[in-house]
Amino acid sequence: MSRKKRIAVDMDEVIADVRPKFLDLYEREFGWRPEKKDYWGKKIYQVNGALQIREFLHEKGFFADLPVMPGSREVLSELKEDYEIYITTAAMEFRASLEDKYDWMHRHFPFIHWKQIVFCGDKSIIHADYMIDDHPHNLHSFIGKGLLYTASHNIEEEAFTRVNDWAEIKKFFQEELKKGA
Amino acid sequence: MSRKKRIAVDMDEVIADVRPKFLDLYEREFGWRPEKKDYWGKKIYQVNGALQIREFLHEKGFFADLPVMPGSREVLSELKEDYEIYITTAAMEFRASLEDKYDWMHRHFPFIHWKQIVFCGDKSIIHADYMIDDHPHNLHSFIGKGLLYTASHNIEEEAFTRVNDWAEIKKFFQEELKKGA
Repeated sequence: MSRKKRIAVDMDEVIADVRPKFLDLYEREFGWRPEKKDYWGKKIYQVNGALQIREFLHEKGFFADLPVMPGSREVLSELKEDYEIYITTAAMEFRASLEDKYDWMHRHFPFIHWKQIVFCGDKSIIHADYMIDDHPHNLHSFIGKGLLYTASHNIEEEAFTRVNDWAEIKKFFQEELKKGA
Repeated sequence: MSRKKRIAVDMDEVIADVRPKFLDLYEREFGWRPEKKDYWGKKIYQVNGALQIREFLHEKGFFADLPVMPGSREVLSELKEDYEIYITTAAMEFRASLEDKYDWMHRHFPFIHWKQIVFCGDKSIIHADYMIDDHPHNLHSFIGKGLLYTASHNIEEEAFTRVNDWAEIKKFFQEELKKGA
């Protein structure tokens, strides 16, 4: 039996849903809640130039209570049978995120061992066969097969296989296994 | 000009000197300070079976004030001209180490950008051309050229190019550059 192929999975906007928190913060700061038509095609903090919203990423607690992206836990738990799963997140920009992200992973994904968690910056350091990420720049520098997880800011990107939700990810890897890839 | 080759550099026992702190803790706990003849060939917490000493790795502050390994700052600062430097440390075993290691890096190696710092577990996830590490198991799973940094616990390992200090690392990479590697 050959070694399992390895999948590197991003956290924010892939297994952790950042959108509701950004919308809450936007509403608190500006008194109205952007709708999909307002933020589709950009980051929420780019709606009417609200870059100060991004500063909340540096606050303790921001990453502590994000909802789990629907289906991610179940699908990763299944994929773990046939693949090595690594969680790879660009946490190093945000000192305050380190413990929150660590705790979040252990709380919501206890079946992912600490050896399979990576806090990094530039993801070109990641050695894997597949990468699931919402940022095209991470996939551009990746040596393996990149899957772009749909987020409001990447809807015009066409260079990568797009996945819109975890059901599509499950289906993609079922097909890969069938192909023997 | 081709892209710079990339060097992944471990923290503990490579750029951060853990030995003095372990010896201090050993002396505090057991009333005597092991000498080189006592710990050479093993970990300090293996001297007369003192595994509880290892538990201090889980305490806040353990990694905060470690001395910088002599020469590491100067040599990395020079190597940065010709190589991409990534600091890759298996921090994920120790939740309490995350902020301490982050702060230590920014204090002592301000020329290493956060994008080039990686907190991981299993280092087979690291994609680089060279790896400098004191643990043979990290080098065994590494895809590039491994350099074993001498530490008391690895003196019998013969599978890798050994470096005893940062002067030897500097010399190794000067030779690599001459060879055009």
